[in-house]
Amino acid sequence: MRDLKWSPSEKIAARRAFDEALNTELGELIRKTKDMAAGIEEASELWNLESWLTQRRLEIERKYDYRYSALPLVFATLLNQRRIRESDLHGLGPEKIELILGVASQL
Amino acid sequence: MRDLKWSPSEKIAARRAFDEALNTELGELIRKTKDMAAGIEEASELWNLESWLTQRRLEIERKYDYRYSALPLVFATLLNQRRIRESDLHGLGPEKIELILGVASQL
Repeated sequence: MRDLKWSPSEKIAARRAFDEALNTELGELIRKTKDMAAGIEEASELWNLESWLTQRRLEIERKYDYRYSALPLVFATLLNQRRIRESDLHGLGPEKIELILGVASQL
Repeated sequence: MRDLKWSPSEKIAARRAFDEALNTELGELIRKTKDMAAGIEEASELWNLESWLTQRRLEIERKYDYRYSALPLVFATLLNQRRIRESDLHGLGPEKIELILGVASQL
């Protein structure tokens, strides 16, 4: 994966797909956090919220790794989680799309 | 501080003052957390909330130490923070109240 060359237009397409998925996921997290906080009645639920947020942050940091060497695996994961569709990869060269689909099928 | 003896009625009085202060502080934290969460617009504010909750939890754990050897310092701190009043210590022996006030004056 490290040897793939990313053209300027591929980088733009990759960044768009990546940012859209990330922003959607962060928006969902914000809504979920507001719901959880609004429902808190006991102190223990404060610490549940804290630890839930920590887990979500670590998960997001692991999943959204914008190194070009990591992007095929990132996109394969996002495809499998239905956070992006194959059409969101338009703009990437066919060898990259093929690689991403191949990785996705093996996750 | 370790040599003080706590009678059963003193333990009840201490527990009541301790629990009241703790529950009031936790209630304030719950309200503040709801306010912070309701105002979140950006993902960075999620992680600010997470780290704020972590700090509050550590602070609460440090401050509310219900070992009898620690209680005089705990109550002195709570007095200085106006989380308890001297009248909340009614039920403790005069030597303990004197010690607590003495510690409070030196914090």
